Amino acid sequence: MPQAMKTYKNPTPAEIDRILTRPAFESSNLEKNVLEIINLVRSYGDDSIKELTLKFDGYFPDILQVSLYEIEKSEEQVSNDLKGAINIAYKNILKFHESQKIKTEVIETSPGVRCYRKPIAIEKVGLYIPGGTAPLFSTVLMLGIPAMIAGCKEIVLCTPCDKEGNINPAILYSAKLCGITKIFRIGGAQAIAAMAFGTESVPKVYKIFGPGNQYVTMAKMLVYLQGTAIDMPAGPSEVMVVADESANPAFVAADLLSQAEHGKDSQVVLLTFSEKIMEQTLAEIERQSVLLPKMEIVMETLKNSSAVLISDRQKMIDLMNAYAPEHLILSVKDTDFWVENVINAGSVFIGNYTPESAGDYASGTNHTLPTSGFSKAWSGLSLDDFVKKITFQEITRDGLKNLQKTIETMAENEGLVAHRNAISIRLP
Amino acid sequence: MPQAMKTYKNPTPAEIDRILTRPAFESSNLEKNVLEIINLVRSYGDDSIKELTLKFDGYFPDILQVSLYEIEKSEEQVSNDLKGAINIAYKNILKFHESQKIKTEVIETSPGVRCYRKPIAIEKVGLYIPGGTAPLFSTVLMLGIPAMIAGCKEIVLCTPCDKEGNINPAILYSAKLCGITKIFRIGGAQAIAAMAFGTESVPKVYKIFGPGNQYVTMAKMLVYLQGTAIDMPAGPSEVMVVADESANPAFVAADLLSQAEHGKDSQVVLLTFSEKIMEQTLAEIERQSVLLPKMEIVMETLKNSSAVLISDRQKMIDLMNAYAPEHLILSVKDTDFWVENVINAGSVFIGNYTPESAGDYASGTNHTLPTSGFSKAWSGLSLDDFVKKITFQEITRDGLKNLQKTIETMAENEGLVAHRNAISIRLP
Repeated sequence: MPQAMKTYKNPTPAEIDRILTRPAFESSNLEKNVLEIINLVRSYGDDSIKELTLKFDGYFPDILQVSLYEIEKSEEQVSNDLKGAINIAYKNILKFHESQKIKTEVIETSPGVRCYRKPIAIEKVGLYIPGGTAPLFSTVLMLGIPAMIAGCKEIVLCTPCDKEGNINPAILYSAKLCGITKIFRIGGAQAIAAMAFGTESVPKVYKIFGPGNQYVTMAKMLVYLQGTAIDMPAGPSEVMVVADESANPAFVAADLLSQAEHGKDSQVVLLTFSEKIMEQTLAEIERQSVLLPKMEIVMETLKNSSAVLISDRQKMIDLMNAYAPEHLILSVKDTDFWVENVINAGSVFIGNYTPESAGDYASGTNHTLPTSGFSKAWSGLSLDDFVKKITFQEITRDGLKNLQKTIETMAENEGLVAHRNAISIRLP
Repeated sequence: MPQAMKTYKNPTPAEIDRILTRPAFESSNLEKNVLEIINLVRSYGDDSIKELTLKFDGYFPDILQVSLYEIEKSEEQVSNDLKGAINIAYKNILKFHESQKIKTEVIETSPGVRCYRKPIAIEKVGLYIPGGTAPLFSTVLMLGIPAMIAGCKEIVLCTPCDKEGNINPAILYSAKLCGITKIFRIGGAQAIAAMAFGTESVPKVYKIFGPGNQYVTMAKMLVYLQGTAIDMPAGPSEVMVVADESANPAFVAADLLSQAEHGKDSQVVLLTFSEKIMEQTLAEIERQSVLLPKMEIVMETLKNSSAVLISDRQKMIDLMNAYAPEHLILSVKDTDFWVENVINAGSVFIGNYTPESAGDYASGTNHTLPTSGFSKAWSGLSLDDFVKKITFQEITRDGLKNLQKTIETMAENEGLVAHRNAISIRLP
């Protein structure tokens, strides 16, 4: 097997540009096609969704909503092993996300002027769970648990069905754990449109969460432009591993491969100081990858991927932050130093016994993370994303008197006389 | 003067729809025109910006960046009164936004599994301050103070110049207080494009903040689609006042008028139980508005606006939250009850001595708030918007052993064998 990953040694600026480049989406006609689906759903509601489901998923659903009976029944269709695993993951994710609650603290900014922020759940949220090759019940937990903790009143979940109209029972079981009962067998751009604008059976929501293919992603962007909030822009998944000579090449290779199996447009990057680690990791990748059921996908991903030898520590830090990886694994001895220097990343995995898989499923952190360098400005999903923080202020007559001159002077200088009057009329 | 506001008494559902409708933007060709400007700036950089500045602002700037000398000089050009006012507002805004820092708390989600979130400043941010009729130095404080507290390394500020190329000294003085020294005399869509993509003189930033006209707003949406984060979607400003018989009609009228002077597309809404308060407020609006320099704007705004009498308290709460006002003033006796029932609002002003003007300038809360019903899903600006919260996790060998079966079972059931292997290889 030929070496699939591109390798670099102390890359030039031009090579660094190549390392930083993400695989491109195919996008000819994407926007036009997705807009067409959105307009169909807005005009024809449920009827159009049923036709689109037949077209894309091969099943004509007479009833779009999954019945409570189907949801209940999922409990006996999921093996005890899997239920046990889901329950443990649930517990850890719940614990970490519960710790993200913020307390309302009243601040007296000046005498008689009390201000505070109060987090209030977004009333109606929509969760999208992709279908395709794998039933992503773990994503149900990652979206459903913070929605439940926040106290969102209406949680709608859309996920595509199979050719018999069924939803994987592990998805239904995970949804049930999170108290989600409004589940629809709808996938793709039509699911996003249904949640953004509402149909006869799907409630309109204010914010839409969840991963998806490029159709789903484009649909989320387009409904955002029309006023529905979304969690974050999304691109293909990626991992960067920073490894010094203390790293274990077999572990590093396994981590890179676990990311590589997600899809052909994924990307993995190895940064290392050690020629030996680099060579051994590449050898381990060859050895381990041939045993993988998704080897074909893995080989495609590796073609988009880089193994980079860098001697200078500061240059490595700069490249790490310039790449702004979704997942960053620090397989290094001096973990404190590296943690301190992370500026841009979605989620960080510290040390040789913290593989990305742990965070994908069960450590408790969220696996919905900014890709494509978006971690320069975006955070991974957290409880924050399911609440709005409303500011409140209450001022006494004396408090306002204290601020009178300040507000009146500023309002006048901004040419806003009615703003000044709102103070003057209270304190003549 | 004829009564400008529409009045409703216990509105029907159709009337409620009308009350909830926001004034529409004119938008024919808007997207096309803005996209043209963005593409010009991407292709021709500074040169195109200079031409656009001549075209739109009437000045050809040889140098786009404001010199440190101009910034320094602003201190003596601003009156002592205004400097004093800005300094007090600065102090209050600083105090409230400093209280929004979150502490990093390490959570042991299960034995040997430690997870935490660490807030890290977005490295490069861009602030847009509109020009037009008023020099909005207050907005400089509202954007600059949280950027400074967060610790953003590069803060770029763009604002249009006047026909002589000058920036209002109060804007420069406020920027200086926030430690901002990279200031450019660039307005409109070209400013947004410059900060999103970078030019010879303007640094590229990762997130853009600030209000603006429909060109600026459209430009922010379009650069968002291309991967630059923005603070929030924006629309015209608005206020809702909820008033019972304890309200003071003169105060309520002054508050409605202060919002009405912002621009012709603003909107103000009065909800009251009391026919007497409604009549007296409308009379006060007539009386006060004739004295305003911006009376013409105010009269246009009032045409888009409603005064609504509702007898049923729950119906009023429902309408309040359905409208989801940017600013909500609660001029009521039973303030606790009303505060408890606020679900959707940007910022809330409690009681008869808390006018919106206070929050616009100096109470300490942020005045960058979600309009157009966006408060259903968006928060007003806070320190949160200038940081990313990166999750970190560190797992011991024993900790991973504890989670081994959970992760392996979940990965297998999602068909992700390489994800399972990343665990198995560590714990054979």
